[in-house]
Amino acid sequence: MRQASQCLAIPTDGKGLYEVTWAVHRFVESERIETGLLTVFCRHTSASLLIQENADPDVQADLKRFFEAVAPENAGYIHGAEGPDDMPAHIRAALTQTQLSIPIADGRMVLGTWQGIYLFEHRRAPHRRSIALHLIGV
Amino acid sequence: MRQASQCLAIPTDGKGLYEVTWAVHRFVESERIETGLLTVFCRHTSASLLIQENADPDVQADLKRFFEAVAPENAGYIHGAEGPDDMPAHIRAALTQTQLSIPIADGRMVLGTWQGIYLFEHRRAPHRRSIALHLIGV
Amino acid sequence: MRQASQCLAIPTDGKGLYEVTWAVHRFVESERIETGLLTVFCRHTSASLLIQENADPDVQADLKRFFEAVAPENAGYIHGAEGPDDMPAHIRAALTQTQLSIPIADGRMVLGTWQGIYLFEHRRAPHRRSIALHLIGV
Repeated sequence: MRQASQCLAIPTDGKGLYEVTWAVHRFVESERIETGLLTVFCRHTSASLLIQENADPDVQADLKRFFEAVAPENAGYIHGAEGPDDMPAHIRAALTQTQLSIPIADGRMVLGTWQGIYLFEHRRAPHRRSIALHLIGV
Repeated sequence: MRQASQCLAIPTDGKGLYEVTWAVHRFVESERIETGLLTVFCRHTSASLLIQENADPDVQADLKRFFEAVAPENAGYIHGAEGPDDMPAHIRAALTQTQLSIPIADGRMVLGTWQGIYLFEHRRAPHRRSIALHLIGV
Repeated sequence: MRQASQCLAIPTDGKGLYEVTWAVHRFVESERIETGLLTVFCRHTSASLLIQENADPDVQADLKRFFEAVAPENAGYIHGAEGPDDMPAHIRAALTQTQLSIPIADGRMVLGTWQGIYLFEHRRAPHRRSIALHLIGV
């Protein structure tokens, strides 16, 4: 049994879903672990993780619109010093995931056919997001 | 330290919560791992996982009604080609869990007294859902 | 490779976020595991877990207000026998996390600068909540 760790830096340019499936896949492949558990951890509170359909880009547009509506900017938040998009960002992060663990079988993540791993950026301004990867197995 | 994996096939017949606690429990028990970590991973983007109360069925009825209201069908989604229940399904999956990890102690999951593990089906039509289980421990 | 487990008892006194970062940190530190994976599991269906900003307390006030609005008390729930705050508690738990896994590197959780781990209490009355910790690594 052994472990491997890596940190991914993901540049973002405004609100939306940024697919990281391939970057994560390359890490798993390079470590040559056949059976194990991969963990993806987002080191931020105004960005988050999501596993979603990677087939039709309209799904992402509708997801963006949904989260815009459920936690709108300018909804009378107390916390406003970091800009009108900051408090909604924390709410959207709370409603989605900070961490995902995915079993590894036959050297690959057991993702379903249409599942992609996304970093969900909730801020307007460009950011450089840090995602920690951890892999354990044989 | 060792690992075990299994894939559960869960037939569903419309929107709702399908309890999988016993199927998962049987897998853990059969592997005879005393201390470890169990991961449950849903290989779909229109179904998800939830740990919820398994005592009063009214809780499940209210949960169903809540998610029906928060992401209704026919809300003007762009993504509609797979039916009016498909985009709400993706949203409900985003708001709940694709993966759950549960510590194992004394050979059993450390679930609380009233906690059950559920597959949350978000589509109307019958489906056969695939859940990957991964167990690591001693 | 080895494992460690512990159960934290967290007294709560009404709805809100209770930070457990330091209690979890002390467990990780005392086990002297340099590289690994820590799992935090909430053994309840009316309380949950959240990683959120620990810098500005206004963020927590806004989060509380958001979850109060998204799943209000007295919204015509069927399940009411355990009090008007019980069904909203289940919904808020469904929308947040029951479990969090955090990679360990250099003997510490890889939390971002502003990330804190919180128990999110959704009931009005005082409770004693049980959180299971599991650590695996070297």
